[in-house]
Amino acid sequence: MTDTSRTPAAAPAGRPALLGQNQYGKSENRVVRITRDGGVHHIRDLNVSVALSGDMDDVHYSGSNASVLTTDTTKNTVFAFAKKHGIDSPEQFGMALARHFVTSQESIHRARIRIEEYAWDRIESSAADDVRHSFVRAGRETRTAQVTFDGAGWEIVGGLRDLVVLNSTDSEFWGYVKDPYTTLPETRDRVLATEVTACWRYGWPGAAVGEPDWEESYRLVRGHLLAAFADTYSLSLQQTLYEMGARVVDARPEVDEIRFSLPNKHHFLVDLEPFGLENDNEVYLAADRPYGLIEATVLREGADARIPVDMTNL
Amino acid sequence: MTDTSRTPAAAPAGRPALLGQNQYGKSENRVVRITRDGGVHHIRDLNVSVALSGDMDDVHYSGSNASVLTTDTTKNTVFAFAKKHGIDSPEQFGMALARHFVTSQESIHRARIRIEEYAWDRIESSAADDVRHSFVRAGRETRTAQVTFDGAGWEIVGGLRDLVVLNSTDSEFWGYVKDPYTTLPETRDRVLATEVTACWRYGWPGAAVGEPDWEESYRLVRGHLLAAFADTYSLSLQQTLYEMGARVVDARPEVDEIRFSLPNKHHFLVDLEPFGLENDNEVYLAADRPYGLIEATVLREGADARIPVDMTNL
Amino acid sequence: MTDTSRTPAAAPAGRPALLGQNQYGKSENRVVRITRDGGVHHIRDLNVSVALSGDMDDVHYSGSNASVLTTDTTKNTVFAFAKKHGIDSPEQFGMALARHFVTSQESIHRARIRIEEYAWDRIESSAADDVRHSFVRAGRETRTAQVTFDGAGWEIVGGLRDLVVLNSTDSEFWGYVKDPYTTLPETRDRVLATEVTACWRYGWPGAAVGEPDWEESYRLVRGHLLAAFADTYSLSLQQTLYEMGARVVDARPEVDEIRFSLPNKHHFLVDLEPFGLENDNEVYLAADRPYGLIEATVLREGADARIPVDMTNL
Amino acid sequence: MTDTSRTPAAAPAGRPALLGQNQYGKSENRVVRITRDGGVHHIRDLNVSVALSGDMDDVHYSGSNASVLTTDTTKNTVFAFAKKHGIDSPEQFGMALARHFVTSQESIHRARIRIEEYAWDRIESSAADDVRHSFVRAGRETRTAQVTFDGAGWEIVGGLRDLVVLNSTDSEFWGYVKDPYTTLPETRDRVLATEVTACWRYGWPGAAVGEPDWEESYRLVRGHLLAAFADTYSLSLQQTLYEMGARVVDARPEVDEIRFSLPNKHHFLVDLEPFGLENDNEVYLAADRPYGLIEATVLREGADARIPVDMTNL
Repeated sequence: MTDTSRTPAAAPAGRPALLGQNQYGKSENRVVRITRDGGVHHIRDLNVSVALSGDMDDVHYSGSNASVLTTDTTKNTVFAFAKKHGIDSPEQFGMALARHFVTSQESIHRARIRIEEYAWDRIESSAADDVRHSFVRAGRETRTAQVTFDGAGWEIVGGLRDLVVLNSTDSEFWGYVKDPYTTLPETRDRVLATEVTACWRYGWPGAAVGEPDWEESYRLVRGHLLAAFADTYSLSLQQTLYEMGARVVDARPEVDEIRFSLPNKHHFLVDLEPFGLENDNEVYLAADRPYGLIEATVLREGADARIPVDMTNL
Repeated sequence: MTDTSRTPAAAPAGRPALLGQNQYGKSENRVVRITRDGGVHHIRDLNVSVALSGDMDDVHYSGSNASVLTTDTTKNTVFAFAKKHGIDSPEQFGMALARHFVTSQESIHRARIRIEEYAWDRIESSAADDVRHSFVRAGRETRTAQVTFDGAGWEIVGGLRDLVVLNSTDSEFWGYVKDPYTTLPETRDRVLATEVTACWRYGWPGAAVGEPDWEESYRLVRGHLLAAFADTYSLSLQQTLYEMGARVVDARPEVDEIRFSLPNKHHFLVDLEPFGLENDNEVYLAADRPYGLIEATVLREGADARIPVDMTNL
Repeated sequence: MTDTSRTPAAAPAGRPALLGQNQYGKSENRVVRITRDGGVHHIRDLNVSVALSGDMDDVHYSGSNASVLTTDTTKNTVFAFAKKHGIDSPEQFGMALARHFVTSQESIHRARIRIEEYAWDRIESSAADDVRHSFVRAGRETRTAQVTFDGAGWEIVGGLRDLVVLNSTDSEFWGYVKDPYTTLPETRDRVLATEVTACWRYGWPGAAVGEPDWEESYRLVRGHLLAAFADTYSLSLQQTLYEMGARVVDARPEVDEIRFSLPNKHHFLVDLEPFGLENDNEVYLAADRPYGLIEATVLREGADARIPVDMTNL
Repeated sequence: MTDTSRTPAAAPAGRPALLGQNQYGKSENRVVRITRDGGVHHIRDLNVSVALSGDMDDVHYSGSNASVLTTDTTKNTVFAFAKKHGIDSPEQFGMALARHFVTSQESIHRARIRIEEYAWDRIESSAADDVRHSFVRAGRETRTAQVTFDGAGWEIVGGLRDLVVLNSTDSEFWGYVKDPYTTLPETRDRVLATEVTACWRYGWPGAAVGEPDWEESYRLVRGHLLAAFADTYSLSLQQTLYEMGARVVDARPEVDEIRFSLPNKHHFLVDLEPFGLENDNEVYLAADRPYGLIEATVLREGADARIPVDMTNL
């Protein structure tokens, strides 16, 4: 939903260079929202990044800020909206922000809100049941959301990153192409480990239809990803990727498309023979770099392909 | 040049989910190449990431690796090519690799090679002039390159990141929109600092025409970026961005398009009045988060817009 | 237990400089140990760093390696010992390594083994109960251990880092010194958050007495740290620190001394008045830098003070 | 100069745990100081961490802050002193702060100031010679300083980190101990690379004698470290370390002691034989982990050994 079709404005007289696509905003607003339900407190902990685009030729060509809502103002809005609207989910919070920016400023035509959420668990304590205000960072994967609104349509993308998983068996790798640079021996039993980065696009068409339950959907997609990873007897990480995506598309009708970036976190079997020891798939060296990187999207039949697979910054 | 038009293959019978765009390869191969010219040594220090795509439905749908050149083989190829072809520039080295993968394997239709290069200076030593084999990491910005080849056409993108620059004056910020969430005071003199990430697409149409001098071009583009930053009296970071891009497009005919990601590294003037001190633009707090983020592409008139502005991972 | 009393050897003739304290070894050996109990697998995931010291004057003064067990050999030993001795706990594994280096090489007088352990949970799957080989990184805090052996005595230090905790109330801060640079308003209700780095020294005197149950002890110390943080009505982070340490010393007789490094992860109440909103301890900005840093050791009465409070690298 | 001899105060009645060594303060104050000399500006860019200790039993035992200068106040002092005293060198600035804290507050007995300094170069621009206010981060190594004052004596330690150096030849490694876990082949020509972390203690005895020129001393010590690394034909990294330290002690009379932490940044010669290529010390894989780690101090004859070699956090 990036504005790829933008026709660059004419360049200023005598200048050879046109402004192309552009966006701006305040990134990484770290907002923590406490809600008090008597002595029982709840916490949501977000990192919110705002990117706006619209009629921004003048500020680039001449430095006139007349159409610019400052990034400082977008920061203030994030904190004010945490109070006014609360944070029920990253998606709901992002939608409130995106709608505000596009509908309140004529010069803003599109808003894209990116959110990371950090999870907290409650600390078990000896306090009474109605006194609960102590938390420990769960340290699990980071939940992500991206909300884009252009005044007409919505694109809502959920996601997660840093979900590290490992199967200590039920993974083979053989039957691949051998060219003059191939030295890798085939294997019928290896460790398969990866750090899942995934994002999934909701098919929700906008206000005419009820929204998905963003919280429930996140919880269930995460569960399907883990289960599919665990349940797949793997002949390649690509196959595991597809099975993870197909499980989500199959089980969660609200999801149309899911993109994965799966580094192959190599665990090399250590050669212990020089020390008179047999290594029967017991001792591994966990390597850092280089690593295989498998990236793909998986789509519901009939759905549009909108998430590009190649998303890393240059 | 991502294969965005890919028609997903039919899903396996009974499966709801199609494979969409995909790519794979070995990432972050850290190759160091020493060249000995008598006692005078030269060093190139790269981080090379390979991403291949093509006929890869089977490996995703069934785990058959029959069309898969392994990521381990792509790693071996990187090191072997460092010996066979040497490293004259990241662009030349990436081109040799991309051409090899696409032309040597029928199942590979497209190769994208990403390279980071780390710079080294010579250590001054008391050794004779013809004995020079000691180096110190320059620690300056990282040079980047991305080479994409699909068997027919080339896309060559140079770049850099982590180039941190600061003007201690000649920057103003005023005249912006005031909405109910605006509290920022206007200023006629502020520090302007940013960490430049830029990538630029060469217009080089392929083998029919001589290649640009990649080394010289990198050196000159970098110089123009610094000079334009320093020379621009700035009314907004957007204006500075445009001036940097326009300078490159104007001065370097081999560059058709340049994309920037410029975080506004805020330097807040510290209020020293409570301590009876005047702070006449002398003492600043360098802040981390949040930060304004300004992103845009600048294009040569008539050139295609091919680098999307919104490149960050979800 | 660093060899602080080392008498530097005489310097080589004509040299002005003596060798002082020194140590060497292979750092960050990433060893993953899988144990198969039928179809039920177990995993231990460590990062092991070896530091040896002893008769090492010659290698520094002349480059003679005759007394040097290479760092590569220490790496091999880590992987071989993972097979030979298994990994029951970081402490037990570190002890096996330290004993080996000191007792097998005359030139090695002291070995210090540092270990980080990363925790994994099992993935719930639909597999039969006796088929369990899928794991997800718990992502919780990292467990640490440091084992030092000099041929005569042992020093065993357990620990953890990256345990992030937050109380959303029951924290005050007032009554402090006001000097000419003090501007901070007092508060009777603030968020208190920190990222606990702690290490605790076991009083275990060596082989004459049975070892503590290292696994159980770690689990219980961690629980006491969390409970004490949650249960303490805090007037200062220093007070909370002491209560956490005192709880451990009180409840765990095997621990003689515990050291904390507690950054005060500031959560600033955002001023929403300019937007006509009241912020009744609901919306906070989570700040990065600068941060208060509180460091202290807490000791059992009668125990020696052996862990220095000031441990950060220069 | 850590207060290792501290006698823990009596524990509160009925408590089993004593407070041991302790310190506190605000860490990572990022202060940027601009000095305007007409149109020519100068910049110093520091990260300042304050740690204070003294009569702090009450704040730990009871939460009374009556003796506590808040960390917020220490932050304010850093910024105010940047205005009042300027920043001629990290050492001078740290001394002004340390003296202030110890002499202005009865409860503060010791102050330790740690400083990192980031270097900037000027950007070449077309502006007139008397208009110079554009800078680019040099990105070289980070300079460090640690100043400790206890009301009577000073300890001044300069330093640097992240200085990455490499010799592409003139390094051998052989003649080492072979035990049952040794597999490393000997070599007569290898790449030797390391990332220098060094800190050196000045012998300056305090105010009775003129201070060293801290700026000049830093510049010269850095030069000697580089030259000694380049000039040493190395049989072991330990030997190179000693030669670097000895060169500094020999050439710089103001330095009494220098400590090094030198990771051996392994560059492995890649085996290209499977591809029919000879690798005559030309193509290397730059590895990340594990790495050899060599740590030692080098002392002037007759000087006290005060910097412990084992400084890493547990």
